[in-house]
Amino acid sequence: MFCKRLNILILLSLIVPVYAAAGDAGVQAAPNGLELPEGYKDWPVISISHRIDNHTLRVIFGNDIAIKAARAGQTNPWPDGAILGKVVWKETAKENWPKAIAPKEFVHAEFMFKDTKAYKTNGTGWQWARWVGMEQKPFGKNAEFSKVCISCHTPVKSSDWVFTTPAQLP
Amino acid sequence: MFCKRLNILILLSLIVPVYAAAGDAGVQAAPNGLELPEGYKDWPVISISHRIDNHTLRVIFGNDIAIKAARAGQTNPWPDGAILGKVVWKETAKENWPKAIAPKEFVHAEFMFKDTKAYKTNGTGWQWARWVGMEQKPFGKNAEFSKVCISCHTPVKSSDWVFTTPAQLP
Repeated sequence: MFCKRLNILILLSLIVPVYAAAGDAGVQAAPNGLELPEGYKDWPVISISHRIDNHTLRVIFGNDIAIKAARAGQTNPWPDGAILGKVVWKETAKENWPKAIAPKEFVHAEFMFKDTKAYKTNGTGWQWARWVGMEQKPFGKNAEFSKVCISCHTPVKSSDWVFTTPAQLP
Repeated sequence: MFCKRLNILILLSLIVPVYAAAGDAGVQAAPNGLELPEGYKDWPVISISHRIDNHTLRVIFGNDIAIKAARAGQTNPWPDGAILGKVVWKETAKENWPKAIAPKEFVHAEFMFKDTKAYKTNGTGWQWARWVGMEQKPFGKNAEFSKVCISCHTPVKSSDWVFTTPAQLP
């Protein structure tokens, strides 16, 4: 009886850290093993965009390494350890200012992780991941999903596979 | 001679803290005495917008108190101590994705400071300030400039004088 309780406690102590490392509220990892970066909603902004082709608004932000590189103008290439995040919303016209387009439904949060050694084999030095919807469901059926990301980013290969230019700030 | 040097040292010790309190690189205070909040570029995002009337893109972010309130949905009224910041850029079409509108020249950074007691006399509980251009020059010839801010914000008096609705996030 004592041993059974002890085993349960040991089991719990093993489970809890795994959930803690998985990021916000134990969100499931992407099919390539990448975890949703914890606290990404608190990261500083690198830039924003309004895609008028698919009617979405975007914030692009970065972890400490990415922000430091963006502010120093050292983004081609971005340094190892940089993580770029992009949050996407459907657009709406603001009720109190109809000539302003603002975010409505949350669509997804997607990330690029830079590590020239770890992600050498795919030819980019980056790895991609996306979590979809308010339930933050990992995108992709298996690890092959990132081929879609790489294909879309190939036109910006010469800017280290990144579409974003850091916005001007004082 | 000794006293003169001592006086200079005392004078310097009085001047230096004033500059240190003035925020980023000693930016001049607004005509109403408000200081540019130090580190505002690192604040988390509350929302963004694209004004198609004057062709500008905006990020709205907040200090710790504002972010906590935004995420808790407690923004009418916003709590005392909340500071909302808005950075404005002129728009441009992205070279690598022409159907995406992105920031170009930095226009200004403007702020709303909530303190129901300190800013009771103007009837809003808020005080406003703006720093213009990359040189971050304070907006307004004298403290009366905030009448312009209040006039523009009067249509949103019922949402605690704030245009922004926090964007949906998981």
